[in-house]
Amino acid sequence: MTGNATKPVQRLEQVANHFNASPSTSSRKPVHAHRFRPAIPKGLPVNYTPLNPVSFLLKAASIRPRHPAIVYGEKAWSFESWAERVAKLAYAFKARGLEEGDRVVVLAPNVPFMSDALQALPAAKLVMVTVNTRLNPSEVAYILEDSGAKFVLVDYSLAHLLPKDLKAQVVICQDSYDASDPYEQFLEEGAAYDRKLGGKEWAGLEVVKDEEALFAISYTSGTTSKPKGVMTTFRGTYLAGIANAVEARLTDSSRFLWTLPMFHCVGWCFPFACTMAMCTQFCLRTTTLNYDDIWTLLQSGVTHYNAAPTVQIALVSHEKAQPLPHDVRTIIAGAAPTAKLIEQLEKLNIAVVHVYGLTETEGPSTRTYYVEKSSPTYYRDMARQGFSFLTADDIRVVRLTPEGSSPPLDPETGDLQEVSPNGEEVGEIVFRGNILMQGYWRKEEATREAFAGGWFHTGDLAVRYPDGTGVLTLLLPLLAHLVISGGENISSLAVENELAAHDDVHECAVVARPHEKWGERPHAFVVLKPGSKWHGKHAEFETELKTFGRKKLSAFAVPEWIEVVAPEELPKTSTGKIQKVALRERVRKLSQ
Amino acid sequence: MTGNATKPVQRLEQVANHFNASPSTSSRKPVHAHRFRPAIPKGLPVNYTPLNPVSFLLKAASIRPRHPAIVYGEKAWSFESWAERVAKLAYAFKARGLEEGDRVVVLAPNVPFMSDALQALPAAKLVMVTVNTRLNPSEVAYILEDSGAKFVLVDYSLAHLLPKDLKAQVVICQDSYDASDPYEQFLEEGAAYDRKLGGKEWAGLEVVKDEEALFAISYTSGTTSKPKGVMTTFRGTYLAGIANAVEARLTDSSRFLWTLPMFHCVGWCFPFACTMAMCTQFCLRTTTLNYDDIWTLLQSGVTHYNAAPTVQIALVSHEKAQPLPHDVRTIIAGAAPTAKLIEQLEKLNIAVVHVYGLTETEGPSTRTYYVEKSSPTYYRDMARQGFSFLTADDIRVVRLTPEGSSPPLDPETGDLQEVSPNGEEVGEIVFRGNILMQGYWRKEEATREAFAGGWFHTGDLAVRYPDGTGVLTLLLPLLAHLVISGGENISSLAVENELAAHDDVHECAVVARPHEKWGERPHAFVVLKPGSKWHGKHAEFETELKTFGRKKLSAFAVPEWIEVVAPEELPKTSTGKIQKVALRERVRKLSQ
Repeated sequence: MTGNATKPVQRLEQVANHFNASPSTSSRKPVHAHRFRPAIPKGLPVNYTPLNPVSFLLKAASIRPRHPAIVYGEKAWSFESWAERVAKLAYAFKARGLEEGDRVVVLAPNVPFMSDALQALPAAKLVMVTVNTRLNPSEVAYILEDSGAKFVLVDYSLAHLLPKDLKAQVVICQDSYDASDPYEQFLEEGAAYDRKLGGKEWAGLEVVKDEEALFAISYTSGTTSKPKGVMTTFRGTYLAGIANAVEARLTDSSRFLWTLPMFHCVGWCFPFACTMAMCTQFCLRTTTLNYDDIWTLLQSGVTHYNAAPTVQIALVSHEKAQPLPHDVRTIIAGAAPTAKLIEQLEKLNIAVVHVYGLTETEGPSTRTYYVEKSSPTYYRDMARQGFSFLTADDIRVVRLTPEGSSPPLDPETGDLQEVSPNGEEVGEIVFRGNILMQGYWRKEEATREAFAGGWFHTGDLAVRYPDGTGVLTLLLPLLAHLVISGGENISSLAVENELAAHDDVHECAVVARPHEKWGERPHAFVVLKPGSKWHGKHAEFETELKTFGRKKLSAFAVPEWIEVVAPEELPKTSTGKIQKVALRERVRKLSQ
Repeated sequence: MTGNATKPVQRLEQVANHFNASPSTSSRKPVHAHRFRPAIPKGLPVNYTPLNPVSFLLKAASIRPRHPAIVYGEKAWSFESWAERVAKLAYAFKARGLEEGDRVVVLAPNVPFMSDALQALPAAKLVMVTVNTRLNPSEVAYILEDSGAKFVLVDYSLAHLLPKDLKAQVVICQDSYDASDPYEQFLEEGAAYDRKLGGKEWAGLEVVKDEEALFAISYTSGTTSKPKGVMTTFRGTYLAGIANAVEARLTDSSRFLWTLPMFHCVGWCFPFACTMAMCTQFCLRTTTLNYDDIWTLLQSGVTHYNAAPTVQIALVSHEKAQPLPHDVRTIIAGAAPTAKLIEQLEKLNIAVVHVYGLTETEGPSTRTYYVEKSSPTYYRDMARQGFSFLTADDIRVVRLTPEGSSPPLDPETGDLQEVSPNGEEVGEIVFRGNILMQGYWRKEEATREAFAGGWFHTGDLAVRYPDGTGVLTLLLPLLAHLVISGGENISSLAVENELAAHDDVHECAVVARPHEKWGERPHAFVVLKPGSKWHGKHAEFETELKTFGRKKLSAFAVPEWIEVVAPEELPKTSTGKIQKVALRERVRKLSQ
C-alpha cells in the first residue's frame, strides 16, 4: 500500500525538483495550447460564463502545469497530469451511461481518487454525493437510497459498508494507482471512451449552462433525525472556494494538508480554494488521524491544515510537538477553541483562524478578525467569530420564536427581529446569500422550515456584543452549549475555557444537567492528562478543579458535577466534534 | 489647497497611529452593529445575493472600521468614516431627484471625492460615467450628450471643460473637504435627506436586484472615431475586482498609490480590489504626474501602483530613484515594457506584473505568469501576457478575416478558427466571459460588430508561442505595432526593446512608414537622455544607433529612419500610452 505519510514528506523536495515547481517557460516541453479549455455552451451572453469551481483547476493546469498539485505517499501529480486524469474520470462516468444531474456516491478517506472525483464529477455535470466514512451500513444504505445514486466509487477498506443488494454500479478503488488497480482501469475506460468520441479531452466536456445547477449533495450528521442532503450549487461553491482561499491566506506557495475529511461539506470547498491558489494538496490515508504522520508533514513544510479543537488538542499534546520553523495557519471549526489551546498552537508557530459554519453554509462562513495579540481580552475575542466571509452575506442573530407562536418581526421592515447587541440576549443565527445551500434534497417541507421568513435558520445560538464594532458574536453552537441555571445563562464554552486552563486537564466538555432547585446546573466531563497524579483520585480531583474554577468563574457557573472520564468516553463526531447532545442525553438520565 | 503629496506621506505613521490600524476590539468605541448593511431586495432566493462590488467597502467598514482607507494630503478617512461619507453622497444624489439607472458624470483627478463617487453611485443604483480629464470641451460635451447625464460632479480645475449651456445639475468640488466646500455641503444635503427619510443610513440603501445591471459607462479614447461608452455590470466589476486583488497580491497591509487615473476603466476596478483587500488607498491630486511626490510616497511605504511604461520610464529615470527598502509591486499595461525597463524597476525593488486589457475588458484581463528570473529568456517572456486573470475566460487569438469575406470558421466546432501556436501566425485577440463589457452604450450596431460570432473582437493582434504551455502570447496591441517589410512581419516592440538598451536612449517608439520597395520600413522616434553627448548631433546618433541595433536585430528590422525628438514631441494618451496611430499618421505623409 501507499499511504504511508512518512515517506512522501521526506520526499517533498524530491517531488518539487521532479516537477520543477517554477520552471522557466523555455524549459517547459510544449503542450497543446488549449488542452485545458472546456466547451462553453452555445447561446450564453458574450459577457457571461457560469461560475464554475472546476475552472480553477484548468487555469492552474494551463499556467502552472508542472507544479505539484497532489502529493500522496510515493505518488504525486502535477496540475497538468492531474487535469488529464480528471478528464479521463469524467469520461469514464459518461462511458458508463451517466447523464447530467445523475448522482454519484463517493465513499473514501482523503486519498487522491477522492480529489479526482471532486473535480471530475462537476466536470461531467454529475452530482457528487459525499458520505461520512464512519457511518454504519444502514446509514450508508439510507443515503444511497435517498440520493438515488446510480454509481458508487468506493475505497476498498469501506466497501463492506455497501448494501449487498446494491443496484448502483460500483468501482472499488485499491488506492494503489498501479495499472492493475480497478480505479486506473476505470480511468483508462474513460480515456478509451474519449478517443472513441474524437479524443477532444477537456474540449469535449461542456460546462453547465446554469451556475445555479446542483453541484453536490452533502449529508448532515443527522444526530436527531434521518440525515438530510444539503444541495449546493456551482455558483455557491465557486464563491465559497474564493472566500476560503482568501480567509485562509492560501497562496501559490502554500502546502495544504488534508486533516479535515474531504467528505465533510465537500472539504469546506478547500479542494477549490487550493486550485484557485494553485497550491499543493497533501492527501493522507486516514479514517483515524495519525498524529505522528501529521507532525512529520508539518515539519516538512506543510503551511495549512483545518481541524476541530479536539484534533488540535491531540496535536499540541503529541510527543513530536515542537515549534515549527515556518509559519503555519490552521482553521479551527466545530467548537470554540479554549484560550489554552490557542496559546499552545501559537507557541508552535501555528496561527489560528477561528471560523463558524455548517454543512448548509458550505463549511466555514464567519470568522474572527483582527484581534490584537497585546489586548488583555485576546483569547476571549479569538473565540468570537462574528464576521462573515468575503463572499457571504452579513451573519444575523435573531430573536427566538416563543414556543407555539410565530417569530417576532421588526414592525418597520417586516423582517426577523435581531437581538440587542448587549452581549446578553441569546438569539438564533440565521443566514442568507451566496454561500448557502439551495435547499435539502427532496425534502421540501424541511427546506421550507429551514428557510422560514427568507432566512436559513441554523438552530445555533449566539449573542451579539457591543464592544468593538458591535458585530462580534459569541457563538454558542447548539442549544447544548447553554446551561440555564437559576435564570442565569451560562455558556458551557466559557466554563470549558477555564477548566481547560488547569495543568492536569487534557480535554473537557460541559453540558446542562437537570437540577431540581436551579433548573439546570453544569456537569463537566474531564479527561486527565496522561501521567497526571490525579489518575485514580477522581473525587479529590473534583474538589481540586472546583476550587480552581471558583477563582475565575462566577459561583453559579462552577460545575456542580465533575466527572473524570477516559478519552474514549467522550463521544465525538467523525470530524472530531464532541457530541454534546449525546452527553446531555446521558446526564439527563442521572439523578437530579 | 491640500493635495501636496509630500506632507501626507511624511505623516503616514501619524495617520496610522491616529487611526489605530489594528486596534484590539476592546479598545474600539462601540458602533451600531448593523450600520454598514444595505437593504436586500425582497423576493430573491435565500441562496442568492446579487454580486455587488460595494459589498467590499461595507465589509471593510464593519471588520476594520479604524483602518485608514483613503489618505490624501493632511486628510485621511478610516473605513468607517469613509463608508459614512459614501452613504451621505448616495443620499445626496437621491435628494436631487436622481433615480435608478440615471447617469452621473464625474470629472476629476485622483482625489477623494472621486473615490467617494465610485462607491456612492453604485450604492445609489446610479450609473457612473467616467471622463478623461484631458479631453477638450467639445469631447466632454459629446460624452455628456451621449450618456444623457443628469448630474455632473466636477473638480474646480476642470469646470471650464463643461459646456456653458449644460442642462445637467452640477456640483463643483473645491477638493478642500472643509465645511465650506460645495462638495461637503452636498454631502450634508444627503445626510439631511437621509434624516428626513428616517435616518437609516446604509440600511435605507437597497442594492440592485439584478447583478447584470449597468454599473458604469467608461468612454474609449476614440482615436479613430467618436468615443464609445463601454457598459460594465455589477457582476463584472465584482469579479474583476477580485481578480485584480489576487493578481496584484493586494493584502490587508498593502498601500496602493493612485498613479493610474481613476477615470480609466473605473481605475481598472482597483477601487474595489483595494476595498476587497481592506487596504489603504493613497490619492494624488494629479492631472500631470509629479514624480517627486511619487518617490516620496514610495519611500514612505507605498507597496503597489499601476502605470504605463512611459510613466515607469520617467520614474526610474528620476533623480530620487533609489532601491526601495520594502517590496513594491507594479502593474504595467498599455504597452509592453522593454527588457531594460523591467531590469531598472527590479533593481529598485519594484516587481513587475505585465498585463493586457482594454476598457472593454474592464482593464487588465491577461498577464505574464511564473517566468523564472534565471531563465535566459526572462525578459522576452516577461513581455508576453497570454494567461487570463482568475475570473476571466481563456484568451483566444483567432485567424484574421480576409478583406471582404467572412471570418474563417473551424469546420468541426463552427467557431472562430484559432491561429497555430507557432509563434508566427498573427491573429486577432478575442474574449468572452465574466470580465467583459455588456456592450457599447446606445450603439447597437457597434456592439453587434464588436461581438461578431459570439466573441469580443479587440482589434489587437497577437501570435501564440509553442514554448512553455503553448498559450503564452506575444501581444502586439494595435495594428500600429506591426511593420510589414518585404513580407517580413516586424514587431515594433522588439525593435523598441533593442533600441532602448542603448545608454543614451531615454524612450523610443517605432512605427511602420510606407516604403516604395519594401512596402513598409520601421521608422524610430527617439528621445535622448538629458545630458547625452548626442544632443545636437542627431545625424551622428542615427548612425550610432543603427550600428547598435544591427548587433541584435535582423537586418530588415533595423529602422530605416531614426528621428531624434524632444520628449513633448511623442504624442501620448492621458494614461501615458504613446499614440502610435498618430505617429503612423505623421510618417505616412513623409516622402517614401
